[in-house]
Amino acid sequence: LRVQTERRSQLVNITPQVQELLGRSEFTEGIALISVPHTTCALAVNEDEEGLKEDVLQLLSRLVPEAGPYEHNKVDNNAHAHLRSLLQLPYIALPISAGKLQLGSWQSLFLVEWDGPRQRMVLITLMGDVANGGKSP
Amino acid sequence: LRVQTERRSQLVNITPQVQELLGRSEFTEGIALISVPHTTCALAVNEDEEGLKEDVLQLLSRLVPEAGPYEHNKVDNNAHAHLRSLLQLPYIALPISAGKLQLGSWQSLFLVEWDGPRQRMVLITLMGDVANGGKSP
Amino acid sequence: LRVQTERRSQLVNITPQVQELLGRSEFTEGIALISVPHTTCALAVNEDEEGLKEDVLQLLSRLVPEAGPYEHNKVDNNAHAHLRSLLQLPYIALPISAGKLQLGSWQSLFLVEWDGPRQRMVLITLMGDVANGGKSP
Repeated sequence: LRVQTERRSQLVNITPQVQELLGRSEFTEGIALISVPHTTCALAVNEDEEGLKEDVLQLLSRLVPEAGPYEHNKVDNNAHAHLRSLLQLPYIALPISAGKLQLGSWQSLFLVEWDGPRQRMVLITLMGDVANGGKSP
Repeated sequence: LRVQTERRSQLVNITPQVQELLGRSEFTEGIALISVPHTTCALAVNEDEEGLKEDVLQLLSRLVPEAGPYEHNKVDNNAHAHLRSLLQLPYIALPISAGKLQLGSWQSLFLVEWDGPRQRMVLITLMGDVANGGKSP
Repeated sequence: LRVQTERRSQLVNITPQVQELLGRSEFTEGIALISVPHTTCALAVNEDEEGLKEDVLQLLSRLVPEAGPYEHNKVDNNAHAHLRSLLQLPYIALPISAGKLQLGSWQSLFLVEWDGPRQRMVLITLMGDVANGGKSP
């Protein structure tokens, strides 16, 4: 799954794309492992509400200010993006039930960009039962 | 698994209930994925010591004060609970060995309530070998 | 997998050992669950750059100072190590593809020691397909 982010810092709700990809597979029960092969963005699960998304950006900006000083900025200029990602998740594992991600009513899955805009990859690994009774991966 | 929390903020050790549920299943080797379909509570693994549980509540209260100000509080009044949960885990994946969660001597599994008291759901998804030599889920 | 840490606080890149262990198994596709049965160290995925590793130690030391005061220090003297570990991960789940951990170009897997030097255990649980077409956790 490819996600094009549009701002320097941004939460992008990727739930519809992941559910659609899961729907096209034949998986019915099991685990979906969603991961990003990047070090300056992360994943998160929470509510898709505009104010809350702004609060997440503010919170991490307060805990890990962009200005630093950081040692890593001697070789690159994005230490804050690495460090904020390190306080979040590089992957999310979620149960699959009846062919869908088992999310609560208020839960959405987000890609959290800290060093955008960029094109990001999201890897999805499915394990469990497929519709024809077989086993996979 | 249902967990009734009793205070506004609280760490509840759910290890016994999860181990019991695992014992009633026939799983012997594999992975247990424990998740909460909520956005204002989280999961954590650490030591069950009264002082440390108090320290966890104090730490998150200091990093994410209840008072804010938060944008999300314009539509609801629990931004601090969402944000504290976002610094913790919405799910825990642990190895199962010989039919039990493979936890270290000092590790317990906690539901961390930030917006209680409430009844919370804990979902448990098991993958791997079952006792009769079959495969599941 | 056993890892001997050498300093009080330290990020140890364990990617080569995990890849080697995976190579000796016959797993080709699936999920690797890497976990630590400890409460004062953690796991992380990010870039192996000397400055950034220093920044990670500094960040967590600033967010969770060693001095406290902490309630847990009445029974032990390492509350800061528990609390820093709680802001990181007790396990990492990563996809396995073609018999290797599917990590991005800049991603390394770290054991993050907060209460060393110590000998630490890293548990690795593999689920998925093995080379001979069989199934295993």
